Amino acid sequence: MPKTTIISVDAMGGDHGPSVIVPGIALAADHWAERGVHFLLHGVEDVLKAELARAPAAARLCEIRHTDRVIASDEKPAQAMRRGKGSSMWNAVEAIRQGEAAAAVSAGNSGALMAIAKLILRMMGELERPAMVARWPSLAGATTVLDVGANIDCDAQRLVEFAIMGEAFHRALNGVARPSVGLLNVGAEDQKGHEEVREAHRILRGGGVDLNYHGFVEGGDISKSVVDVVVTDGFTGNVALKTAEGTVRFIGAELRAALTGSVLDKVGAFIAQGALRRLMLRLNPSALDGAPLLGLKGLVVKCHGGTDARGFSNGLRVAVDLAESQYAQEINASLEHLTATLAATARDDEAAPEKIA
Amino acid sequence: MPKTTIISVDAMGGDHGPSVIVPGIALAADHWAERGVHFLLHGVEDVLKAELARAPAAARLCEIRHTDRVIASDEKPAQAMRRGKGSSMWNAVEAIRQGEAAAAVSAGNSGALMAIAKLILRMMGELERPAMVARWPSLAGATTVLDVGANIDCDAQRLVEFAIMGEAFHRALNGVARPSVGLLNVGAEDQKGHEEVREAHRILRGGGVDLNYHGFVEGGDISKSVVDVVVTDGFTGNVALKTAEGTVRFIGAELRAALTGSVLDKVGAFIAQGALRRLMLRLNPSALDGAPLLGLKGLVVKCHGGTDARGFSNGLRVAVDLAESQYAQEINASLEHLTATLAATARDDEAAPEKIA
Repeated sequence: MPKTTIISVDAMGGDHGPSVIVPGIALAADHWAERGVHFLLHGVEDVLKAELARAPAAARLCEIRHTDRVIASDEKPAQAMRRGKGSSMWNAVEAIRQGEAAAAVSAGNSGALMAIAKLILRMMGELERPAMVARWPSLAGATTVLDVGANIDCDAQRLVEFAIMGEAFHRALNGVARPSVGLLNVGAEDQKGHEEVREAHRILRGGGVDLNYHGFVEGGDISKSVVDVVVTDGFTGNVALKTAEGTVRFIGAELRAALTGSVLDKVGAFIAQGALRRLMLRLNPSALDGAPLLGLKGLVVKCHGGTDARGFSNGLRVAVDLAESQYAQEINASLEHLTATLAATARDDEAAPEKIA
Repeated sequence: MPKTTIISVDAMGGDHGPSVIVPGIALAADHWAERGVHFLLHGVEDVLKAELARAPAAARLCEIRHTDRVIASDEKPAQAMRRGKGSSMWNAVEAIRQGEAAAAVSAGNSGALMAIAKLILRMMGELERPAMVARWPSLAGATTVLDVGANIDCDAQRLVEFAIMGEAFHRALNGVARPSVGLLNVGAEDQKGHEEVREAHRILRGGGVDLNYHGFVEGGDISKSVVDVVVTDGFTGNVALKTAEGTVRFIGAELRAALTGSVLDKVGAFIAQGALRRLMLRLNPSALDGAPLLGLKGLVVKCHGGTDARGFSNGLRVAVDLAESQYAQEINASLEHLTATLAATARDDEAAPEKIA
């Protein structure tokens, strides 16, 4: 019999709360039963009971942990940290620290989740904030991109840490043995870009970090699957992600307009519209729901606020796959190795100061 | 009779050289004749004569300036500056300094053009490098985005200068009296983003610069036409532009694949394919050819290396529209005003040091 994996769920989080979260669990209930996965649902007991009554296959896998406190979607992170104790989100994360659950999943307020998770679980190594990951639709399937918004100012070491975490995440989730890693820049040549990205390039290329490092990549390479993992600072990553999402929406709108031009266009569009609609949904960089907050001492997966049952189910899969992988240990070992390497380099530089540029 | 506007053309630049450049002039020959526009074609006389023989309407508007020196597409900027003298690109720009032409247009090597233009024409105010502009397809037509790659590190003053130049450019080209301006950031609130973007936000909002300033915008707002002009540093702008181009290519590829799924899809796609192809071409952020190098003391317009006759014709239109507008004088006046305002603020801060944050 396989060992049991317990996932802690903020059952009140997100725009639709339990009405998509419980059906999200139910969607793959047979699969979870087979894998020995169980769920702790944190939220309002009466509401959750009513939802579970409609989903008996899910009910058998779930245990309710009652709380009637819920963090609002517009609550400020600082406020959520001070007043969020005992809320469904807080309790979902706290269950990891208590050793009750292997991972937590929430579709609630991002800023609050990041603040609470950091407070309860703490960060690995010298990291300051969890990195946000996007699983970006691309020619070969999905490219892992980080950071897409949490860490605005990043020095070279932070970028290298993202590379380490993103690579381990991509392997755990996609079963790729040696994911390739690229640094986002404005060109492929060594002298391109600002100092932070060039310094990170030197560290990654230097071999002190054992990664399948490809080198610099450009914005157009993300959806082209040139590498498996694209590393960037949270400012650039956020702008790139939102620009791509905006481009998809724009094309969708223009496509509908273009296909209502001539009568022939309309006939064609009517026939092809199912394929088009499926495609535009799939191509949105937000389509692949379920992104872990990387760098925490514990697994927390964030789903979109507007997630549906399928999206939440996907988030659960990410949590279970990561929980059952060697992901956390790999990151820990690599980060320790990085710290040692950088310290040794710093000592060398001190011993030979004329080498400093 | 209208006054004559003379445009200097690097007739050898770009992947296809005179074979698209002369047809590019011919495309709107009647229009140019009516507006009193003439062209100086810098390049190999025999080649240009042969092309002009096939385009008599264009030939009447053109004067050939022979040179057999051409800057290669892979030549390094520093090399082009040292050895480019007398080349078609160099002479096209030099004609502005000599007062022979009101503007220059080239589809040649970007880095070389920027270096040569800067050397010959020099920069306005305290600018260090010309800013690169993208005319980005959007719901309302086109959004002006800058810098998309020339200035990697930008302080707050540089960003404000981009706002001034981009606004004047957008007005000159689109006839909008008071284009709205937004600063690209990761959120709309004042405290979002890094120090440079927040400081530029304070200056623009402070009213020392007379612009129709909207505030922060996000990546998804560019193609949504939330503002007319989007300002960002060259690193972020380059990544955003290439990401959007990559997204358009990716959607195009997936669209073709999706529409060859079922037989019905195929029929629909066959019928609608003309509309689809036109649309994908139009939506590429590079579709609108002809981008000025902003900040030079002189008008230089860059077309894509792979431009075709239509693209080059568009670049010529940008050059003529700018040459016949008040664009240069407006930018000069606004930059002087900015310098005076910032100097006054610095003096105030010195007089009252306790106010410094």
